[in-house]
Amino acid sequence: MKKNPRFAVVLSGCGRADGSEIHEATCALLAIDCANCTYQCFAPDIDQAAVVNHVSGKTVSEKRNVLVESARIARGNIKPLKEFKTEDYDGIIFPGGIGAVINWCDFSQSGVSCSVDASIRQTIWNSYKAGLVIGAMCIAPVVIAKVLGGEGVKVTIGNDEGVAASIRQTGAVFEACATTDVCVDEIHRVVTTPAYMLAQSIKEVCEGADNMVKAMLEMM
Amino acid sequence: MKKNPRFAVVLSGCGRADGSEIHEATCALLAIDCANCTYQCFAPDIDQAAVVNHVSGKTVSEKRNVLVESARIARGNIKPLKEFKTEDYDGIIFPGGIGAVINWCDFSQSGVSCSVDASIRQTIWNSYKAGLVIGAMCIAPVVIAKVLGGEGVKVTIGNDEGVAASIRQTGAVFEACATTDVCVDEIHRVVTTPAYMLAQSIKEVCEGADNMVKAMLEMM
Repeated sequence: MKKNPRFAVVLSGCGRADGSEIHEATCALLAIDCANCTYQCFAPDIDQAAVVNHVSGKTVSEKRNVLVESARIARGNIKPLKEFKTEDYDGIIFPGGIGAVINWCDFSQSGVSCSVDASIRQTIWNSYKAGLVIGAMCIAPVVIAKVLGGEGVKVTIGNDEGVAASIRQTGAVFEACATTDVCVDEIHRVVTTPAYMLAQSIKEVCEGADNMVKAMLEMM
Repeated sequence: MKKNPRFAVVLSGCGRADGSEIHEATCALLAIDCANCTYQCFAPDIDQAAVVNHVSGKTVSEKRNVLVESARIARGNIKPLKEFKTEDYDGIIFPGGIGAVINWCDFSQSGVSCSVDASIRQTIWNSYKAGLVIGAMCIAPVVIAKVLGGEGVKVTIGNDEGVAASIRQTGAVFEACATTDVCVDEIHRVVTTPAYMLAQSIKEVCEGADNMVKAMLEMM
């Protein structure tokens, strides 16, 4: 294994219903730190597609910025995604949360015909081309599939048949996966885990994040 | 030890600079779940005293509600603090973050002469009187000291001499404490840990939260 692997973690806001799922993002950072590796958080400097009241579940008429809200999870230590350089990292992780499919792209509205934010698309493509190990949790693997589906990448999001069908439409291979397990694509160097697509508790999310980071490290 | 201990977790918003510190709150929930205990999140249904841009660190002219923002950490599963009943819980945890000293009370502005939100004051006092074990992290122990100082409660916030002096002014006993250790007051049934008052990484916060929950369980 590489010495002192460096991770980038890409966020999509702060909160499961309109940004990064907080437990997933936090458990990913924790898993990286517990493996004695370092991380740097990034997020695209764009407006959120929506702001959702997490008590009522309803969309509200507020405007928030993905980078600014993601900074809450990163404790201020975050960079705009356009500053991300593949040569500075060995792995890159995309936690889940609805932000992945409304802010990074509009998959939640448009399905596989969605368009992906340019900085997200370039980050995924450049990381793949540079041989970084890519990790993604929960619903975030659909964005990986959308960008790398033509390469035949293999991912999981758990066992949701509707989302699995969309993933297959991108050209990607879908693999069903148990809650805390990981789907490992050694050829494309991609590790995915279901997290809250299946998890019933934060402990299960933590275990899945740990397994994802360990599987990523094995490929570095 | 009691069978199936039940924890309440009280939040002050979502983000270190104007609410609950996200890593601390998340690690507290994780520690509870890993101990096979249950939790319910609560927050006061009040406006935040400020909204801070976590990239720039500057206060912005927005209005946000403590309960609504706290719901992001709780994934929507949260109740207004006025619905908290001591008989439903064995322990109650107050994570840190600046929200503890600007939203729960105005300690950050007024020091020991601060006033405490009525629902927070009642919750701490009623929990103490009912014999619940109280846990608090980072800067949150100053609020415990403000409410229970007259009882001679013992707390830590790490080793900051200025804050320690304020804590002593409430009548509380201050105890210095290493990063991941806990200060245990067996008489008043209060456990406190420094978390990000001293922690250099999320791993240390997680270890402190684990130690806090374990020390709380030993008193149940």
